[in-house]
Amino acid sequence: MVKIGVIGYGYWGPNLVRNFVEVPGSQVVAVSDLRQDSLDRVKARYPTITVTTKHHDLLVDPTIDAIVIATPVSTHFDLAMQALQAGKHVLIEKPMAATVEQGERLIEMAARFKRVLMVDHTFVYTGAVRKIKELVDAGNLGRIFYYDSVRVNLGLFQHDVNVLWDLAIHDLAIMDFVLGARPCAVSATGIAHVPGKPEDMAYLSCFFNENLIAHFHVNWLAPVKIRSTLLGGDQQMIVYDDLEPSEKLKIYDKGITLTDGPEGRYQQLVGYRTGDMWAPKLNTAEALHVETLHFLECIEQGQEPLSDGQAGLRTVRILEAATQSLTQRGRPVELVWDEGH
Amino acid sequence: MVKIGVIGYGYWGPNLVRNFVEVPGSQVVAVSDLRQDSLDRVKARYPTITVTTKHHDLLVDPTIDAIVIATPVSTHFDLAMQALQAGKHVLIEKPMAATVEQGERLIEMAARFKRVLMVDHTFVYTGAVRKIKELVDAGNLGRIFYYDSVRVNLGLFQHDVNVLWDLAIHDLAIMDFVLGARPCAVSATGIAHVPGKPEDMAYLSCFFNENLIAHFHVNWLAPVKIRSTLLGGDQQMIVYDDLEPSEKLKIYDKGITLTDGPEGRYQQLVGYRTGDMWAPKLNTAEALHVETLHFLECIEQGQEPLSDGQAGLRTVRILEAATQSLTQRGRPVELVWDEGH
Amino acid sequence: MVKIGVIGYGYWGPNLVRNFVEVPGSQVVAVSDLRQDSLDRVKARYPTITVTTKHHDLLVDPTIDAIVIATPVSTHFDLAMQALQAGKHVLIEKPMAATVEQGERLIEMAARFKRVLMVDHTFVYTGAVRKIKELVDAGNLGRIFYYDSVRVNLGLFQHDVNVLWDLAIHDLAIMDFVLGARPCAVSATGIAHVPGKPEDMAYLSCFFNENLIAHFHVNWLAPVKIRSTLLGGDQQMIVYDDLEPSEKLKIYDKGITLTDGPEGRYQQLVGYRTGDMWAPKLNTAEALHVETLHFLECIEQGQEPLSDGQAGLRTVRILEAATQSLTQRGRPVELVWDEGH
Amino acid sequence: MVKIGVIGYGYWGPNLVRNFVEVPGSQVVAVSDLRQDSLDRVKARYPTITVTTKHHDLLVDPTIDAIVIATPVSTHFDLAMQALQAGKHVLIEKPMAATVEQGERLIEMAARFKRVLMVDHTFVYTGAVRKIKELVDAGNLGRIFYYDSVRVNLGLFQHDVNVLWDLAIHDLAIMDFVLGARPCAVSATGIAHVPGKPEDMAYLSCFFNENLIAHFHVNWLAPVKIRSTLLGGDQQMIVYDDLEPSEKLKIYDKGITLTDGPEGRYQQLVGYRTGDMWAPKLNTAEALHVETLHFLECIEQGQEPLSDGQAGLRTVRILEAATQSLTQRGRPVELVWDEGH
Repeated sequence: MVKIGVIGYGYWGPNLVRNFVEVPGSQVVAVSDLRQDSLDRVKARYPTITVTTKHHDLLVDPTIDAIVIATPVSTHFDLAMQALQAGKHVLIEKPMAATVEQGERLIEMAARFKRVLMVDHTFVYTGAVRKIKELVDAGNLGRIFYYDSVRVNLGLFQHDVNVLWDLAIHDLAIMDFVLGARPCAVSATGIAHVPGKPEDMAYLSCFFNENLIAHFHVNWLAPVKIRSTLLGGDQQMIVYDDLEPSEKLKIYDKGITLTDGPEGRYQQLVGYRTGDMWAPKLNTAEALHVETLHFLECIEQGQEPLSDGQAGLRTVRILEAATQSLTQRGRPVELVWDEGH
Repeated sequence: MVKIGVIGYGYWGPNLVRNFVEVPGSQVVAVSDLRQDSLDRVKARYPTITVTTKHHDLLVDPTIDAIVIATPVSTHFDLAMQALQAGKHVLIEKPMAATVEQGERLIEMAARFKRVLMVDHTFVYTGAVRKIKELVDAGNLGRIFYYDSVRVNLGLFQHDVNVLWDLAIHDLAIMDFVLGARPCAVSATGIAHVPGKPEDMAYLSCFFNENLIAHFHVNWLAPVKIRSTLLGGDQQMIVYDDLEPSEKLKIYDKGITLTDGPEGRYQQLVGYRTGDMWAPKLNTAEALHVETLHFLECIEQGQEPLSDGQAGLRTVRILEAATQSLTQRGRPVELVWDEGH
Repeated sequence: MVKIGVIGYGYWGPNLVRNFVEVPGSQVVAVSDLRQDSLDRVKARYPTITVTTKHHDLLVDPTIDAIVIATPVSTHFDLAMQALQAGKHVLIEKPMAATVEQGERLIEMAARFKRVLMVDHTFVYTGAVRKIKELVDAGNLGRIFYYDSVRVNLGLFQHDVNVLWDLAIHDLAIMDFVLGARPCAVSATGIAHVPGKPEDMAYLSCFFNENLIAHFHVNWLAPVKIRSTLLGGDQQMIVYDDLEPSEKLKIYDKGITLTDGPEGRYQQLVGYRTGDMWAPKLNTAEALHVETLHFLECIEQGQEPLSDGQAGLRTVRILEAATQSLTQRGRPVELVWDEGH
Repeated sequence: MVKIGVIGYGYWGPNLVRNFVEVPGSQVVAVSDLRQDSLDRVKARYPTITVTTKHHDLLVDPTIDAIVIATPVSTHFDLAMQALQAGKHVLIEKPMAATVEQGERLIEMAARFKRVLMVDHTFVYTGAVRKIKELVDAGNLGRIFYYDSVRVNLGLFQHDVNVLWDLAIHDLAIMDFVLGARPCAVSATGIAHVPGKPEDMAYLSCFFNENLIAHFHVNWLAPVKIRSTLLGGDQQMIVYDDLEPSEKLKIYDKGITLTDGPEGRYQQLVGYRTGDMWAPKLNTAEALHVETLHFLECIEQGQEPLSDGQAGLRTVRILEAATQSLTQRGRPVELVWDEGH
């Protein structure tokens, strides 16, 4: 039985608590939050859980094995460091940290203390994304041409991070999981419409050494909600619409064919192959439920999580470079990946 | 009765011929094309129209008042120059020319010979775009925040121009008409997947001195066809889906509200205002029909067309800069607009 | 503070309990169910609520003011009668009873004991249906031509009632509320595909003395879920799609116009008027929350509920006639409404 | 080369003429219509075609092999009889005749004169319907549970026939082709909102000896256009949306499973099987083009058309019975099919 302490009971915390309460093998013993009213909601719902305004109480509690951090990004590093130093396993909200340097230090610390450090890249645990990875790995799509994603809606301005760190992080985590490719450079554009607030809409392009491009459109100011991803290959193409109740994934047996024209390449003819569309049945288990079980399993068996510190760090590295480009109207920023990761 | 000669009877030419045949006030006297089978199709359909493989025949025909050019971009400049020099009015396919310099010379020439030079920015003549302009001019949207457009499908590779010149031109023409704003810089990214072919997908960001951003996603390799534009303002927002059979335009009475938080701007609260959605009835007249009548009217009354050489030049100027940025992974390229235009 | 006892904690019961727990002014003191595992779920979620397998315990508990009945239809009459006789107010699941005669006796009993008898016609308390009623009452639609509804999905076979009593009841309750019209006859067709089970799909037509028709398609065997209603008038028409996340209601400014032809009525020309479409913002409060507050208000102020026994009885009367017609391949069955209701 | 004469150049005639002009193997020599302006349109488009206001001219023209009849239903019988008596092959608009008796006499006449009598059941020649038939015949759907169709829009009132004869005829022809089953009884309801006009909306149920039901909803007064058919089997189910540009057919691998409950059939548990969805690529050839070629082939090889007189008669027989039921509020009307057909 893994004993859990949760820091932060705001927007996402309640979902984490609910799942750790429901899954077998874990018990939520304490929740900390700075706001008393949040703690009151915990008590009303879960009378047996201890609540406190001091996260420190959780760190010094010897019965607690793991700390779940669901606080603003700016606090992730300090809280995770303290938790690891206190010998706790850590599940941390995305993005894992505010800078690459912070992320690297968290990974070191977890390694030194031999603790599980997992980042909450929720989408990686959905049936839809699992199926996409399965199809890509099986080579169904053929050579991947592009990854294009749109994640927009009217909503929830953040005041500490821009829209890339709030929304694009989801898509970067999905792409990292599905393609396993690392961009060699990025170019980002965007704008802040509200004085004193970070960019509320942004466009991010990722370049790769492979003949591949990725693009992300994120927006807090859209009149309609869109969660749509196009994944194009030379054999098949996928449309992933996360708002579709029943057919989130559509696989199109479409692609192009090349035949030389009479006078060679400039006359080369590009043909289009169109075939059936197919919407596979997906595992509908709640992603956070799957993720919670995975976290417990990693703790008990001392294995590396699917969304480990390295995965978290890779997305932060891209976000850091993207934010730099964002301030320079899309000037490309190169990314360097050392051997290890 | 304006006598028309049409050069080029490939993909778009037949639509131009059909409309000039149908509208009152014009008569198509001759069509030229290099391919005999194209001319055969003209004859089969319109026995009374003269056909020729030599466009020169049209230029020297004194009975012809206006030349319509529907040939590949690379030929626009030469053909339009010859037509203007022969004293003909000219309606030219978009993009008007392959370079800014060519466009400028065409405008000069038209001015010198006092001839109508019109560019076929078809969408500017649709009921949907007219309505958008009407709403923007009336101030319904309030302060414009962004213009975001997606124009993708599996389709029709060009071999002489990249996807920006083929698809984004439509959206740039619409934006130019609707916003009348001129970008001060652009950043474009994209990729060519087919050896020896131009970029088949691209992303273009336009920056403005106003607190505004525009973005265009064009793609020849998408499994599904999308023609969707978001136009966001602080008062209202528009979703324009050109594939919707009946409700192409949806106006959302949505926006944001700002209220200072207890501790000032970093605590400033962004609220969301959501109201009704409204889909106005649109004029369903064929755009090309409206445009054809407008061209004839401009000739007869010696007035400037809505989509005149200057409008054509503005889009070419953006495409030229975008293509430059495209080759440098999104490096921003500045745009200079002299007083006149 | 109204003290509530809930009988039945199966599919719908948990929603009723949750709402009575959350709204101010009521307290759920006890829940009864025949299945121990259901009671265990109550305990786990609400440790303070008393649970029992004997509904009788609730009826004899003097502290309980009102009984909420969420059990199979066949048990509604007996349980409601016992509750009313015990002097309790009653909120009963739809359909209120299995026969008209049962419904009438419940109404009498409630009247005699001066107790509130309310039927859970949930949709009547949704923002969408409220808005439809508002528009109809304001005369926006003009003369109502028809009411057409489709409520189909793959799902949840009942074994005690046919699909009309399970699904059409919702639409009959909505129509009763919106139109306030009473059919003079019905014709129903349908079929039972599973041996020993009631009809799993059915079509019901309602005739009125007014120049109006209503039709209901309900189906437990559809591959896709549809919740769609068309409400046509000579001035405007409504499309109500309950599955639409944001625009459940679309009002079309469409209708027909009549002009006599040269040779009179058989040459009379029917024209079509088409205008804007409009999707009003709707109140998004949970229907059951609104309904729960309404029930408490009726108890405290001794007023008649919107969905009172008479409303419940009217739908049962239609269902009874429809089921009769259903067994005779659509033979029309007349409905008689006495003055009172 | 089959020489064609076309009677009637109103709404559908132009499509028939265009196709007979375009396909190889036929030549349209003459068109007759009572309206001079219709004939002028023929001349403008096809200068070489002879036009006349007297259909008789076509019947007596010895060079004409086949007569295509595209006139109002009430005239079908007389015109077709005259054409057959004149020794011409006949392609007749649907519905083939105004009564069963008329249909039977046309079939006799065609048999006696050994002439091809084909009814224009256009949908039977579409790629979508062909694919549905293919899947049903292959047994993919398993046992067919139901056929449910909705064909509504704001539109084109007829003054000589009710909405069943105008719209349901399409679906009855499709069902006849796909299922090859014959209803043993029908029940129809509907209403006429416009004085002096036939019913403008109607609902038709068809009963079969098999454990199957079919239902058709047709409506000239709907604010939105719907062309949707559900075809349910115990193995798979089809959704056919004819307005979908690219995925008209969706096959759902869904069905039900039966398992006895502890206490037998009333406790029998109905389970749901849900699997992938699949949208097959369809032949996109114009239906009328395929049909035209088929008509020519039948003439040249003396074979029976797919949509022969018998198929036409079967749909008329159902429409006649349905119209009878329609006037009696759904009273079921039995259908008798003699051995031959």
